[in-house]
Amino acid sequence: MYLEKINGPEDVKKLSVEQMEILADEMRDALMNKLSVCGGHCSSNLGIVELTIALHCVFSSPIDKIVFDVSHQSYSHKMLTGRNLSYLIPEEYDKVSGYTNPVESQHDIFNIGHTSTSLSLASGLVKARDLAGEQYNVIAVIGDGAIGGGEALEALSLASELKSNFIIVLNDNNMAISENCGGLYNNLEELRSSKGKSTFNMFKSFGLDYVYVHDGNNIQSLIETLNEVKDIGHPIVVHVSTKKGKGFKMAEDNSERWHARKPFDMTTGKDLVDRGVNYQMITYDYLLNKSKKDPRLAVVVSGTPSVLALNKDKREALGSHYVEVGVAEEHAVAMISGLAKNGARPVYAVYSSFVQRCYDQIAQDICINNSPATFLVFSASIYGNNDITHLGIFDIPMMSNIPNLVYMAPTCKEEYFAMLDWAISQEKYPVGIRVPCGQMILKEKDFSCDFSDVNKFEVVEKGKDVAIIGLGNFYAIAEKVSEILAKQGVNATLINPRFVTAIDEELLESLKAEHRLVVTIEDCVLNGGFGEKIARFYGDSDMKVKCYGYKKEFLDLFMPQEVLERNGITVENISNYILSKLK
Amino acid sequence: MYLEKINGPEDVKKLSVEQMEILADEMRDALMNKLSVCGGHCSSNLGIVELTIALHCVFSSPIDKIVFDVSHQSYSHKMLTGRNLSYLIPEEYDKVSGYTNPVESQHDIFNIGHTSTSLSLASGLVKARDLAGEQYNVIAVIGDGAIGGGEALEALSLASELKSNFIIVLNDNNMAISENCGGLYNNLEELRSSKGKSTFNMFKSFGLDYVYVHDGNNIQSLIETLNEVKDIGHPIVVHVSTKKGKGFKMAEDNSERWHARKPFDMTTGKDLVDRGVNYQMITYDYLLNKSKKDPRLAVVVSGTPSVLALNKDKREALGSHYVEVGVAEEHAVAMISGLAKNGARPVYAVYSSFVQRCYDQIAQDICINNSPATFLVFSASIYGNNDITHLGIFDIPMMSNIPNLVYMAPTCKEEYFAMLDWAISQEKYPVGIRVPCGQMILKEKDFSCDFSDVNKFEVVEKGKDVAIIGLGNFYAIAEKVSEILAKQGVNATLINPRFVTAIDEELLESLKAEHRLVVTIEDCVLNGGFGEKIARFYGDSDMKVKCYGYKKEFLDLFMPQEVLERNGITVENISNYILSKLK
Repeated sequence: MYLEKINGPEDVKKLSVEQMEILADEMRDALMNKLSVCGGHCSSNLGIVELTIALHCVFSSPIDKIVFDVSHQSYSHKMLTGRNLSYLIPEEYDKVSGYTNPVESQHDIFNIGHTSTSLSLASGLVKARDLAGEQYNVIAVIGDGAIGGGEALEALSLASELKSNFIIVLNDNNMAISENCGGLYNNLEELRSSKGKSTFNMFKSFGLDYVYVHDGNNIQSLIETLNEVKDIGHPIVVHVSTKKGKGFKMAEDNSERWHARKPFDMTTGKDLVDRGVNYQMITYDYLLNKSKKDPRLAVVVSGTPSVLALNKDKREALGSHYVEVGVAEEHAVAMISGLAKNGARPVYAVYSSFVQRCYDQIAQDICINNSPATFLVFSASIYGNNDITHLGIFDIPMMSNIPNLVYMAPTCKEEYFAMLDWAISQEKYPVGIRVPCGQMILKEKDFSCDFSDVNKFEVVEKGKDVAIIGLGNFYAIAEKVSEILAKQGVNATLINPRFVTAIDEELLESLKAEHRLVVTIEDCVLNGGFGEKIARFYGDSDMKVKCYGYKKEFLDLFMPQEVLERNGITVENISNYILSKLK
Repeated sequence: MYLEKINGPEDVKKLSVEQMEILADEMRDALMNKLSVCGGHCSSNLGIVELTIALHCVFSSPIDKIVFDVSHQSYSHKMLTGRNLSYLIPEEYDKVSGYTNPVESQHDIFNIGHTSTSLSLASGLVKARDLAGEQYNVIAVIGDGAIGGGEALEALSLASELKSNFIIVLNDNNMAISENCGGLYNNLEELRSSKGKSTFNMFKSFGLDYVYVHDGNNIQSLIETLNEVKDIGHPIVVHVSTKKGKGFKMAEDNSERWHARKPFDMTTGKDLVDRGVNYQMITYDYLLNKSKKDPRLAVVVSGTPSVLALNKDKREALGSHYVEVGVAEEHAVAMISGLAKNGARPVYAVYSSFVQRCYDQIAQDICINNSPATFLVFSASIYGNNDITHLGIFDIPMMSNIPNLVYMAPTCKEEYFAMLDWAISQEKYPVGIRVPCGQMILKEKDFSCDFSDVNKFEVVEKGKDVAIIGLGNFYAIAEKVSEILAKQGVNATLINPRFVTAIDEELLESLKAEHRLVVTIEDCVLNGGFGEKIARFYGDSDMKVKCYGYKKEFLDLFMPQEVLERNGITVENISNYILSKLK
């Protein structure tokens, strides 16, 4: 066993290439053992094991600085930089996050979870080094579809301006999460098949030096090339062809399915827990059905097939209605504006944490142009994702304050589809839907009203003294609070606001007559959010307003329930507050 | 005179090439006559006259759809599409905006003012056309540095997926606003000097068909090439070499200075109105001085030299401290994070309307990583810019709700520099400064305190009953209101909050003792902004809160004073409100 003795990169350097090859096998075993229990990113980590060993053999981190793009492929790096036990000992599995993390190690320079930023971040390290007159290597490791993201292309074009040491390692495994899209990837294929010799070479077109490594899972070959580029005095692209999923048969055969997994059975590859039907799946079914009736429907996805539970068959079933743009959220949003303006009915499915990658396109290309496109924002909830870079609790302040956009928050499955029906059928507004998240709520109620009277809240129960406004996912909490209050003899008004982007001033005004307190509950940060708009509306009146939501902070690896409690968002706490206030 | 008889593209088609050449001269005359009176974009419009004539001669807008990137070069297009009189008759000069505008004409498909979106928008038009089974040409016209923006590069790579008619006209005048940066532009130069024949060709690397027009100001040559690509069945890049500033000597010689001008003298080229010293100029002087003392200072600008009143000499004076990245805001922000993490002191100067192009990078690369970089946000005010795509009144909701960022709003020149001193010297926080805008306010006061007790508001005058919190630019209004109130015997508490990103809870709590009303005034939209946070804080207390700011809406070609009045933001109105409320 070598892995258990690797306390840092200096221990890697002591090994012979043969020993490193054994180490690579051990690392794959450790990786899959841990992933089968904890879940996480499989394919990309399997493919990059040898490259990571070679990097730590040739370069001297943390003096030399290595930046991993998106960093979900940094598990090998963590194993070699003092965190081996977190992959070997089940009790220590939860000691490390799934991304590079400066809190864990000086070998991790940034917290990164969104793609295509590594070259820009590393460009900053390069420039700072040069200003300080220092000498060491700066290495960015990019792959997995990230190179097609606009920011990475900006940085690639600008790299040649730096004129000093900057090593761009392109880990090219011929795959993004799903298939790659775009001419750029055809160029990579040409370069792979010509062993780097093709006349067409986008890197050389950008004025960059270039070297190719054909067998990117061969440690000897990698070490030789990296030694050649070490301490180089100008930017260079090291194009490394690796095999995604390498060493784990099922992942080699279907790297898309094995991109990221929940806990699985090592032998069969099946999920250990059946997660049942989710909003991703039923949204896909809805859109497939819609596509058969409406030739104008266009379903746009940007690099994250899981957002609609897609696989190859499902993509093919959508046919020409399906548009996958890869990691190119900005392009996706401007494109749906063009689609909408030209008579199509575009629906863009995107995770909350990535919709923030296109604020400017939402504002200018969609909202100023008032293009009737539909955004489906998934995982927008404390229940969405608990990695610091993938939080789903910032979309309301980000989106809801942009004029013209109608952002809606359904409270259950039926209302979600009613809103989706309306959004796709109308041609007046850009619409976003905050797709419900967490346990699926079903209601027998008929929601097939139209929503064209935008920003009209729904009064579900009429009461007095206190009105409780429960937004989207947290309408359920408002409902429960209302039930508790009823038992205490308080007949609360219960409101489903349905819309996040504006307030129903007429209704709020009318509440003044028989209410003294309005309580808002939202599944998002409070700052810049929904409740604050209501607090401002009542600001100089006698109405008291209390807003429940999250404190503005970056959370990481948290338990949702604990965050709810810390922010007072429990049925008990809210009920008690209201009762004490009404006394 | 031909121009006065051009009522639409059909009239262009009737002319011979010789007549079109005369038309081009007339268009340049009309352009410069109008610009000398009204100001606007000069160089790029001068360069594109012939190309625009050829486009409207060969294609049939609005059936064929032409999208102009950034669209500040669309003046010729406007002249040829029914808006000639707005360039010929001084009384009609203000009938058209400076960008394409669907309200003006069916020949304008989008409102566009930010760069690098045209290929994505046009991709949407293409896809919608194909879904509908229709046939016509879709043309995107891109140039002036926009092709280096990430979104344009995403779209360029993805264009080859479309496999149907899509004509990308690259108007290559060898200039962005200032010099182009990045390897991509070296490639364009190679292509120009080889008349399109260079082996290295980024477009072909991306899998795109390609054709080159050497003399892009020759109408005959343009018409021939455009006729060849008309109705083509796949995407193609038409690389057109044009001369920026063409036909106006001073603009040909210094196209950067003539990129956009305020009204000028046609003979001397001098400004008609001396605009005096502004914040752009004094910030540059400050940074130049700083660079001589601190080798770690890095001044980053992304494609808009005017943000620091830069010209070639000023750039050179900053030497290695100056980093120009071109139109690549995302890259710029991630780069300053890298700079800050590696010990440099980065200052990124950016306009408010463009800072929104990097929300994700601010959130992830700067704020999650808590990188001590400094943002200087210019033109963040109703006085900033009055084009719908360039508004400066959305940055507070966009930026202030991101955790970790410290966003500051100075009230005068002295406080601005004190904040800048502090921001650059500290290493604990990412800091944004909302650079003052409008008339420069000077104070004799000493602001050289440090600001490390972040989110601490300053009580400038202690009073009772009412507290007035005037943020940044609008502290001056609060001051005047306070003076008026004093004359009426009301002794108001006057507060300069200094920070936008959080509230001073201790101070606000203490106000409860002797105050009944808090008034906030901010130079931004109210929704998601500063005042709402204070309204929420006092929500369930007896304190009344009134927030002044702008209604959430897209404004266009407005007079600031009129917007202020419409939103009740006048000294008189606010004073009257307070007096009536205190009665």
